[in-house]
Amino acid sequence: MVTEGASGARAAARCRELSRAPYSDRADRLFRGWLTPAHRATIERVGAWMEQAGMEVRRDAAINLIGRYEAARPDAPALVIGSHLDSVCDGGAYDGPLGVMLGIECVAALHAQERRLPFAIEVIGFGDEEGSRFPAAMLGSRAVAGTLAAGAADMVDADGISVDAALRAFGSAAAWLTGAHRPPGTMLAYLEAHIEQGPVLEAEGLALATVTGIAAQLRWDVTVTGVAGHAGTVTMGLRRDAVAAAARMVSAIEDIALSDASELVATVGRIAVAPGAANVIAGDVRFTVDIRAGTADRRDRAAAAIRTGLHAIADARGVRIAIATVHDLPPCPCDPRLMERLDAAIVATGQPARRLMSGAGHDAMAMAALGPVAMLFVRCAGGVSHHPAEQVDPADADAAFAAMRGFIDRLGDEHRDA
Amino acid sequence: MVTEGASGARAAARCRELSRAPYSDRADRLFRGWLTPAHRATIERVGAWMEQAGMEVRRDAAINLIGRYEAARPDAPALVIGSHLDSVCDGGAYDGPLGVMLGIECVAALHAQERRLPFAIEVIGFGDEEGSRFPAAMLGSRAVAGTLAAGAADMVDADGISVDAALRAFGSAAAWLTGAHRPPGTMLAYLEAHIEQGPVLEAEGLALATVTGIAAQLRWDVTVTGVAGHAGTVTMGLRRDAVAAAARMVSAIEDIALSDASELVATVGRIAVAPGAANVIAGDVRFTVDIRAGTADRRDRAAAAIRTGLHAIADARGVRIAIATVHDLPPCPCDPRLMERLDAAIVATGQPARRLMSGAGHDAMAMAALGPVAMLFVRCAGGVSHHPAEQVDPADADAAFAAMRGFIDRLGDEHRDA
Repeated sequence: MVTEGASGARAAARCRELSRAPYSDRADRLFRGWLTPAHRATIERVGAWMEQAGMEVRRDAAINLIGRYEAARPDAPALVIGSHLDSVCDGGAYDGPLGVMLGIECVAALHAQERRLPFAIEVIGFGDEEGSRFPAAMLGSRAVAGTLAAGAADMVDADGISVDAALRAFGSAAAWLTGAHRPPGTMLAYLEAHIEQGPVLEAEGLALATVTGIAAQLRWDVTVTGVAGHAGTVTMGLRRDAVAAAARMVSAIEDIALSDASELVATVGRIAVAPGAANVIAGDVRFTVDIRAGTADRRDRAAAAIRTGLHAIADARGVRIAIATVHDLPPCPCDPRLMERLDAAIVATGQPARRLMSGAGHDAMAMAALGPVAMLFVRCAGGVSHHPAEQVDPADADAAFAAMRGFIDRLGDEHRDA
Repeated sequence: MVTEGASGARAAARCRELSRAPYSDRADRLFRGWLTPAHRATIERVGAWMEQAGMEVRRDAAINLIGRYEAARPDAPALVIGSHLDSVCDGGAYDGPLGVMLGIECVAALHAQERRLPFAIEVIGFGDEEGSRFPAAMLGSRAVAGTLAAGAADMVDADGISVDAALRAFGSAAAWLTGAHRPPGTMLAYLEAHIEQGPVLEAEGLALATVTGIAAQLRWDVTVTGVAGHAGTVTMGLRRDAVAAAARMVSAIEDIALSDASELVATVGRIAVAPGAANVIAGDVRFTVDIRAGTADRRDRAAAAIRTGLHAIADARGVRIAIATVHDLPPCPCDPRLMERLDAAIVATGQPARRLMSGAGHDAMAMAALGPVAMLFVRCAGGVSHHPAEQVDPADADAAFAAMRGFIDRLGDEHRDA
């Protein structure tokens, strides 16, 4: 149901409006890249919604869209409510925009009541989070946080266009790497609402969860080297079959992750077999391992057990194994006091508190460099994301809207008392 | 050691000579395709060796090279000793030519002694066994056996050249599909020596084995369909991971094959994962299963157990499975009386009798349509074949030569008595 006044359902409806032309770079599906015509149309439309909600609107040097709703007193630090406006190719309507649209609704509600708080509210629609255009992700929020390395300016897209050139062509006047950097002390806290991108809330019949943090992540490339042979002539006992060895390893990884009985997850998502013929025993298998947990300790304990297990399988089978670490990302915990306020605001909507780790990365990771962060997960159908089937129930968006308003009120009470 | 007189070592040396230009179509490695310049050079060279060994030499309509050493009486049926002259791309020196060269050596030894037998000996170098040029294998021996379907004439190679056109360009005057067919009753028996292409003889310290037959073979394409998801956000308990399910299936296949404790082999040689990204739980996995055993019964019992096991894993994990049969080839047993003679001839060389199933296909499969067949396996280094590292010890070639002569003598004694 879409109402004239501020609501979560209106935020959801606006996400769906943004999933079609002219807000998509493709006619038949959603792809909104950074600094593309669809991006320009989107920030014009969203900027107009921000103005309607009573915000002063600007674009920073990295073409992040920023709307500011002033505090009771000028120049107060801001509660920043943000998420991203870009999408993956063939993406869904809600991944990113929902957090921006809900922020606008929260401000619209305050504006309708002519309420001012002890802090400003800034709603940011980051231009790049998915990294679909340049070989890096979260360029928008990292530019705001001031955590991009100088080399980021030299990155080029598939057409050889640099970030600098793309930004100039879009109309940015300032040096983006430094120009978008938010001055220290101007962010009181950061709040991001995002679809869960997982099936837990749906499985438990809940609309919302407080995010405990973004997982510590480890990614390996594993190479198993056995001895290739003829599938008909090498007897079972004489084989050193890389596929058979890798299969035991995949099962060991799953067993160790399951036995942790926690939020820890471990995934083998890619397997490549060489030579890869039906009648040839494989000599080489390469596969990826992705391990994530709420804390680096928990992740590293599981990783050590997996490493030991994989080597034991390799030794027992007379195959060689090499494990190369591709990524090693620390966790990004959410702020404990903000989590408590968000829990209370969720409970006030009528559902029990639920805390979930975020296994996926979000702009909140980057914004944590500027101050304490909080995240709210919203149930999505089937846990599906990065797909046209991505779906959020308008009633859940309303619940998220209510929880965010409750969170803002609690933060306002605290800072009014302080 | 290469000697002037007939020997196995000379046969091995000739194989090595044939592995280089002008007997290879590539300068840097061995590739001898059917009806290519290298094939022409090879049949000229091998034909000359046949003539030196006292044979009358001809090419049939399918450009199989045939040398005949007459019996004591004219028009007697022949013991056919054959194998193939073509190679796979980047192949080894011995796979195929060794059986032809050893046949020539056997005749050369009889010729040097001016001995005639109750049967003729024909040595055949088949033009195509590997199927490297046209989309079918054993075209040479199947033309001789008369078992090719009429549609075989319409096959074209990668350049769009048909078998008929290629044969005409090479100089064949007759219709190959019927012209190469060997008249019934003209083959007393067929003997093929071939490298083992497996590691069993090397592991057991033996040079030779009597082949019991060519395995019954079954090949499946298996498709496992789970639910794709985000590697960070779908908790372990809620996954329907196609890779994790397939890994258990690969292990079940191996366990069932090992528990058969026989010559039965089962292999998963190809795995394809979709979408196949490190941070995505796989929704689809396709893999091949290749099952071979000496009898169809044994093979089918294992296949039934594997099928049951795979479905049980799929059911327990909530993933779907589809099993499509790609190949179902019956076994080709060797002749029991010929096997006994070959056993005795092997024992006479000083090693114990050893019988092995052939998990790979050979020209003997095709020639079995014309009469009883026997096969002799010769040890190869590391079980390696279809690779430049393919290697046969000259002493093992001498042992094979001795065993083949003993086999011929025993067959001669029998038919002289008869």
